[in-house]
Amino acid sequence: MADLINPWASFSLDYDKLVNKFGIDKISDIIGDIENPQKLMKRGVIFGHREFDEIVKLINQNKDFAVVSGMMPSGQMHIGHKMVVDQLKWYQSQGAMLSLPIADLEAYAARNMSFEKGREIALKEYLTNWIALGLDLERDNVNVYLQSQNSLLHNLAFKSSSKTNFSQLKSIYGFEHSTNIAHLQSPLFQVADILLPQSEEFGGPKKVVVPVGIDQDPHIRLTRDIAHRLHESEGFIPPASTYHRFLTGLTGDKMSSSKPSTAIYLNDDTKSAIKKVKSAKTGGRETLKEQEELGGEVDKCVIYEMLLYHFIEDDSELEKIRHDCLNGTLRCGECKMRTAEFMEEFMDDLHEKQVEAAEIAKTLI
Amino acid sequence: MADLINPWASFSLDYDKLVNKFGIDKISDIIGDIENPQKLMKRGVIFGHREFDEIVKLINQNKDFAVVSGMMPSGQMHIGHKMVVDQLKWYQSQGAMLSLPIADLEAYAARNMSFEKGREIALKEYLTNWIALGLDLERDNVNVYLQSQNSLLHNLAFKSSSKTNFSQLKSIYGFEHSTNIAHLQSPLFQVADILLPQSEEFGGPKKVVVPVGIDQDPHIRLTRDIAHRLHESEGFIPPASTYHRFLTGLTGDKMSSSKPSTAIYLNDDTKSAIKKVKSAKTGGRETLKEQEELGGEVDKCVIYEMLLYHFIEDDSELEKIRHDCLNGTLRCGECKMRTAEFMEEFMDDLHEKQVEAAEIAKTLI
Repeated sequence: MADLINPWASFSLDYDKLVNKFGIDKISDIIGDIENPQKLMKRGVIFGHREFDEIVKLINQNKDFAVVSGMMPSGQMHIGHKMVVDQLKWYQSQGAMLSLPIADLEAYAARNMSFEKGREIALKEYLTNWIALGLDLERDNVNVYLQSQNSLLHNLAFKSSSKTNFSQLKSIYGFEHSTNIAHLQSPLFQVADILLPQSEEFGGPKKVVVPVGIDQDPHIRLTRDIAHRLHESEGFIPPASTYHRFLTGLTGDKMSSSKPSTAIYLNDDTKSAIKKVKSAKTGGRETLKEQEELGGEVDKCVIYEMLLYHFIEDDSELEKIRHDCLNGTLRCGECKMRTAEFMEEFMDDLHEKQVEAAEIAKTLI
Repeated sequence: MADLINPWASFSLDYDKLVNKFGIDKISDIIGDIENPQKLMKRGVIFGHREFDEIVKLINQNKDFAVVSGMMPSGQMHIGHKMVVDQLKWYQSQGAMLSLPIADLEAYAARNMSFEKGREIALKEYLTNWIALGLDLERDNVNVYLQSQNSLLHNLAFKSSSKTNFSQLKSIYGFEHSTNIAHLQSPLFQVADILLPQSEEFGGPKKVVVPVGIDQDPHIRLTRDIAHRLHESEGFIPPASTYHRFLTGLTGDKMSSSKPSTAIYLNDDTKSAIKKVKSAKTGGRETLKEQEELGGEVDKCVIYEMLLYHFIEDDSELEKIRHDCLNGTLRCGECKMRTAEFMEEFMDDLHEKQVEAAEIAKTLI
């Protein structure tokens, strides 16, 4: 059984308020029950949950459960998204069924994107990279689908919509009378995405976990509510969820699918990626002297985050970097060089794998 | 070219107000352009329309058009419904594509009916009788479908829903904040049903006509509005419509799928049907003497309606019955006997045809 690694506990400090505000539970309280936790759980990146203890029990008992993770086919996939794929890989290693909706209906409603364009982006940006990153989408217990093509989903969304009304959607999402009805329905397709693995066609009611950012919690709460209301007719049970923080953008702002200066895109060429690493915001002080005296501000450092999220597997190695930064012996240039090397290796490898992955992707949707 | 048959013009008198109120046009104004009008058009049962003149042009030029007629799979099919089938047969004879949705989603939302039950009722009550009544559902240009099974329809409903909002639906249907969202979506599935024949899969944009009762006009207007708004992206054009009155119930009230005393059900046995004819409300006076002096009230007579809607093909024969009733020479007993004979023949023939029809029906959905 693993303990929560202390050096990264400070990472979730900002999130304590969120945990309290939304009434979700801390991962740190149950991490001891997980035999082989995913590294992002130990490192505080995945910081909260609802009923994840139920999932842990199922993992420990080798019982069936499912994971749902959707993608909105818009913009480009970036290095920050890799974290979700890493979680899915971990769930797959724990025997989970994966259900992976591509939200082309939502893209239509929110961005007026045609289904054809949605499919194209899903293939090129998402499925290809998911496979290249090591997710096995060809297994029997993996269900990748376009929302627009799934009539089972449509019916489930319709059934779900019979269990909510305008008042509830307004209170959750702030919808107005002028909100178009497609927009009003979009969350119900997400609800249906989350409930889908419980339908008869996938073996009936089961526990499902949804790894999300805290901003997605309204969907989780709506789904849990509707699952309750559909319990009698469909046997559904409420889904569990986990909450992760996001990799900070290279500029110190939010990492964005549409702002190239903030993100390293998985379809960037390796040279551009390295260049972006080298110009990323660090936790370095104004002067070298200050850095030696005060140490680096490691919790504000995008480079350190890259190492923590993606490039350093060994906990003690990461702890040493953190320690050396804080006491001023590790300099930013050195850290950047090392991260650039990791990035080069990672991107070259990924690009090589994308070729075959693109072929596999086409067979899936 | 046919003229409007005068004896039955009085039938549409009650509907003149409706025509004015809703801004629809009179069939009587264009019936001269129809080479071989359906008898219910000549007889004032089909009394109004929107843009039916466009359909008439297409018929006269032998060009493509489609007819949409839906059924809600609930309750039993009765003799009043036969009128719609007769219209569809006429359209089929004019070369129309038929698109026939079975509104199992609406039955779920409005009556909590499972999709399984909806399919069962659709087969037994509706498709079987439609075929037994002489509609050819096996042609290539006939599309019978369950809403729940049609993902093309779902996507079209979603696209349609992006072009309306709560305000508009509230103003048309009086929806409240507490209205469940499935109920809110139901009209959008009807909109999609009507637009479906215009989708690429069915040869792209074309004129569609929807034969309905005046109570369905809100759906028509909403569809015409949404078709306009989807014109740019999908090329859709607004559908045409015709409006028919309904066969009065046997008791003089509304004929109902769920009130056996008001209707002759197509799955009734022949004896019950005859019995119902014999006890139907007529336009007869209190006494025989009064009847001879004043004549019968033919426009209040359910038996006369049966003859007009269903059993007398020859216009001059019907005119004679009307004339003889009004001048008091035709007695109710005589008319009832005759109608009972028609009914016996009709029901025996129908029941015989239902056997094979039920087998064909199963192959369709």
